Amino acid sequence: MRIGILGTGNVARALAAGWSTAGHDVVLGSRSPEERTDVTGAGFTVVGLDAAVADAEVVVNATPGTVSVELLGSVGAAALAGKTLVDVGVGLSDDFTELSHPNSSLGELIQKAFPETPVVKTLCTMDASVMVRPGALEGRSTVFLSGDSAAAKQLTARLLTDLGWSAASQLDLGGIGTARGQEHFALLFIGIAEGLGSHTFNIDVVTLPSGP
Amino acid sequence: MRIGILGTGNVARALAAGWSTAGHDVVLGSRSPEERTDVTGAGFTVVGLDAAVADAEVVVNATPGTVSVELLGSVGAAALAGKTLVDVGVGLSDDFTELSHPNSSLGELIQKAFPETPVVKTLCTMDASVMVRPGALEGRSTVFLSGDSAAAKQLTARLLTDLGWSAASQLDLGGIGTARGQEHFALLFIGIAEGLGSHTFNIDVVTLPSGP
Repeated sequence: MRIGILGTGNVARALAAGWSTAGHDVVLGSRSPEERTDVTGAGFTVVGLDAAVADAEVVVNATPGTVSVELLGSVGAAALAGKTLVDVGVGLSDDFTELSHPNSSLGELIQKAFPETPVVKTLCTMDASVMVRPGALEGRSTVFLSGDSAAAKQLTARLLTDLGWSAASQLDLGGIGTARGQEHFALLFIGIAEGLGSHTFNIDVVTLPSGP
Repeated sequence: MRIGILGTGNVARALAAGWSTAGHDVVLGSRSPEERTDVTGAGFTVVGLDAAVADAEVVVNATPGTVSVELLGSVGAAALAGKTLVDVGVGLSDDFTELSHPNSSLGELIQKAFPETPVVKTLCTMDASVMVRPGALEGRSTVFLSGDSAAAKQLTARLLTDLGWSAASQLDLGGIGTARGQEHFALLFIGIAEGLGSHTFNIDVVTLPSGP
C-alpha cells in the first residue's frame, strides 16, 4: 500500500520504518523537505506535504497536534477527499503539560474540517518505539481505534497488524468522538512514565476470565 | 483502622464492605443519614458527615466530584486537619460525558482547599467492583496513587493491600498534580467500557521484560 506520513519526527520515522519493513511504499511529508537532510540521510524519502498526499492511498497525520488542522488545510480538502486519514497526533500543548483540546479532540476536529476524509484515531496512547514493536513488551497490550467509518477502521486494523498488533490486542472504541478518550490519556501516560522512569510501556485492558 | 467514607453510593458501599471484611472499623457519612434506610438496611452504618470525619483516622471522599469540595467545606478544614484524605472521586460532569476539571483535577482542588489535610488520589480509574476485588480479573492490573505526602501514600498503600492490591500492582505517579492524569482517564474508561460492553475491567501497565 502507498502510505504518506505527514511529519518527520520520531513517530513519523518509526512508523515509516515499520511499514516499509512490512512491504509498504512509504514517504514522509514535510513543509520544507529540502531542509530535512538529516531524515533523508537516515534513508527515508521526504517529499512536500502535497506530494505525500497526492500519491498516497492512506495518509497518516504525525504532525504536532497543535498545528495539524492548519497543515492539513494547506494540503486542502479536495486532495484529501476519499483517502483514509490515520491520525496519531498527540492532544497536548507544545510543552506536553496540558490537554490542547480538553473535552474535544484533534481527531474530531480533523474529521469535522474534512468531512469527505474518513479519520481513524489510533496509536496516540504510547511511545513511538512501542507503536512499531509491541512484541518487545513483557506481555500483551492494547491499541485503540476510534472512527466513524467501519471501512477505514478495517484498513487501519490491517496496518496495525502489519506493525505486530494482533487482532486480540486491537480494541475498537466506537465513533470518532471516542478519540478524546485516547487523547486525554496523555496526562496519565506522562504520570506513568514519571512513575516508571521510562516511556517504553503500554497499557493492557484486563477483563474477567472468559466463561467455560 | 477507623475509616470514615463520605458518600453512600456504589463506590462508598463497595469500599466499606471491602475494608470491613479486612477488619477495619468503617462508617459511611451522608448529609441526611436518617433518609438512607436503604443503606443501613443493607447492613452499613450511616452517620452524618461531621460524625464520619470526627471519629475517623482516614477519611475517604466518595462523593460526586462536582460537589466534593463544597461537602468537605461543610465539614470544615479544622475537622479534617491532620487526617489523611483518600480521594476516589470521579472527575466527570454529572452526566459522565465531560471532564469536570479539564487541565486540573478534583484531587488538586481538594488539596488546595485543605492544605492541612494530606490528599491521596487513587482507585478512580476503575469500576467499584474491581476496586475491591482485583483478583477476579484474568491477570494483574494496576492501581495508581498521586499525592504530595509520602506518609499519606504509605497509609493508602496499606489500605489498597487490604483490598487485594499487591505491592507490584500499585504505581506511585508522584505529587497530587498527577491526579489529573488519573481523572482524565475517565473518558478512555468510558470508551473502553463501550467497546467491551462491560465496566468490569482494569488497565495494566505493561513494561519491557526485566533484565537477566
